[in-house]
Amino acid sequence: MNRTQLIQTIRQKRSYLCVGLDTDPQLLPVSFARTAEGVLQFNKAIIDATRSTCVAYKINTAFYESLGAHGWTVMEKTVGYIGDEHFIIADAKRGDIGNTSYQYATAFFSQMNVDAITVSPYMGEDSIKPFLTFPDKWTIVLGLTSNSGAGDFELLNCDGAPLYEHVLRKVSSWGNPSNLMFVVGATQADSFTRIRSICPDHFFLVPGVGAQGGSLGEISQKAMNKDVGLLVNASRAILYASSEADFAEAAAKVAEKYQAEMSTYL
Amino acid sequence: MNRTQLIQTIRQKRSYLCVGLDTDPQLLPVSFARTAEGVLQFNKAIIDATRSTCVAYKINTAFYESLGAHGWTVMEKTVGYIGDEHFIIADAKRGDIGNTSYQYATAFFSQMNVDAITVSPYMGEDSIKPFLTFPDKWTIVLGLTSNSGAGDFELLNCDGAPLYEHVLRKVSSWGNPSNLMFVVGATQADSFTRIRSICPDHFFLVPGVGAQGGSLGEISQKAMNKDVGLLVNASRAILYASSEADFAEAAAKVAEKYQAEMSTYL
Repeated sequence: MNRTQLIQTIRQKRSYLCVGLDTDPQLLPVSFARTAEGVLQFNKAIIDATRSTCVAYKINTAFYESLGAHGWTVMEKTVGYIGDEHFIIADAKRGDIGNTSYQYATAFFSQMNVDAITVSPYMGEDSIKPFLTFPDKWTIVLGLTSNSGAGDFELLNCDGAPLYEHVLRKVSSWGNPSNLMFVVGATQADSFTRIRSICPDHFFLVPGVGAQGGSLGEISQKAMNKDVGLLVNASRAILYASSEADFAEAAAKVAEKYQAEMSTYL
Repeated sequence: MNRTQLIQTIRQKRSYLCVGLDTDPQLLPVSFARTAEGVLQFNKAIIDATRSTCVAYKINTAFYESLGAHGWTVMEKTVGYIGDEHFIIADAKRGDIGNTSYQYATAFFSQMNVDAITVSPYMGEDSIKPFLTFPDKWTIVLGLTSNSGAGDFELLNCDGAPLYEHVLRKVSSWGNPSNLMFVVGATQADSFTRIRSICPDHFFLVPGVGAQGGSLGEISQKAMNKDVGLLVNASRAILYASSEADFAEAAAKVAEKYQAEMSTYL
């Protein structure tokens, strides 16, 4: 899905909601087997319940890898079930020397056929550029993350600016707003105005709303640009809205609530 | 494999060689199918050819993920084929918020049962600590990497010291030399003396010898400590020593050459 299509989808649905499929077998409703197959069936139910209100799905690869090769198959089948009307993100936090990053890009862009992958910037230019060479695919680089550990290195003062600002500026020069996004955590609302001024045109993938406590209203107010420029992710708040038989209806309701709030900001 | 066992193995074999299984189906000798199954058969031949001269194997997850679920199965079977007399590293460069890092640790330590995993430090403490909670398992955090992009962020001057030094110091305080190593690239020989002074007791995983041009002699001289403290990786130089039918003999010879040189430094 290219930038024009993504923006059109957001405008049509009046939503910039991304549903995070961080599906933990231990947290499935009792009617599901706590297996890779159970995860797939649960994902399908969540996707059916949220299709109309979200524009993107984010698959957290860790939760599938912990199920071994069967988990990888479930990830592939989940991507197939979502189809091509949603923007699909592999939240994989990859990144390595050039020839290895190229293999990761092949894994997710060619083999699994997702639209985007999250990448860690630590190793620099040759670890990120191979991802940027795939047409109509997106690289989503970690900027300022939502977790407490963001303070350890991302906020270190480097030559007068925090590390993450160097990342935003330097990585921006390697790609463009049609193939590059940044992860900016919803819990970092104080920094959003400044971050938007550094990257006026890029989309931000914003995790941390819901279970992690970020405010959708504050982020939207501070960071929306003329093309919206935001994909706001909720995972646990939707997946585990109810642990009972009504889990899908409960998930749909939470997603609808987010979408309704988003529509007021658009 | 715990620290005592690792050091014993190194002393017994007079080797601190790690063979990197970055197996690219496109580079297999012509007698192998360019498929996941071909990769597995090639890995088995390389493992048999190098078992006696190396102490560790490093599986570069990207090359397996690019083959989809079949690739993940090959990774699992390769780990099984290596067995428990070698130190096995998943070179995966993972790292995410706490609950997600825990899932990655489960994937590699419990499900795949490797000894160690490489982790990117960008997201800080809660992205690394979950890996450190698994007994007798190792977390290998990126310090100063071997690639050209290392200059982009790892060498940024942060409050008077390069970023990677902050990583070495801060991450060291979260673990200990029995559950934590650092990646230090062989192409960074100028920095090895200082890095060893910052982390006198930790093992370093050193990629970049061979195809990337680092010097085994210089690294060994500058960075060896009383417990050796080094695992030096070679991947392409061994895997693709010959593209003909004699590839396994050629791989064995290159590995023997490294081992013979290492034995002179011990």
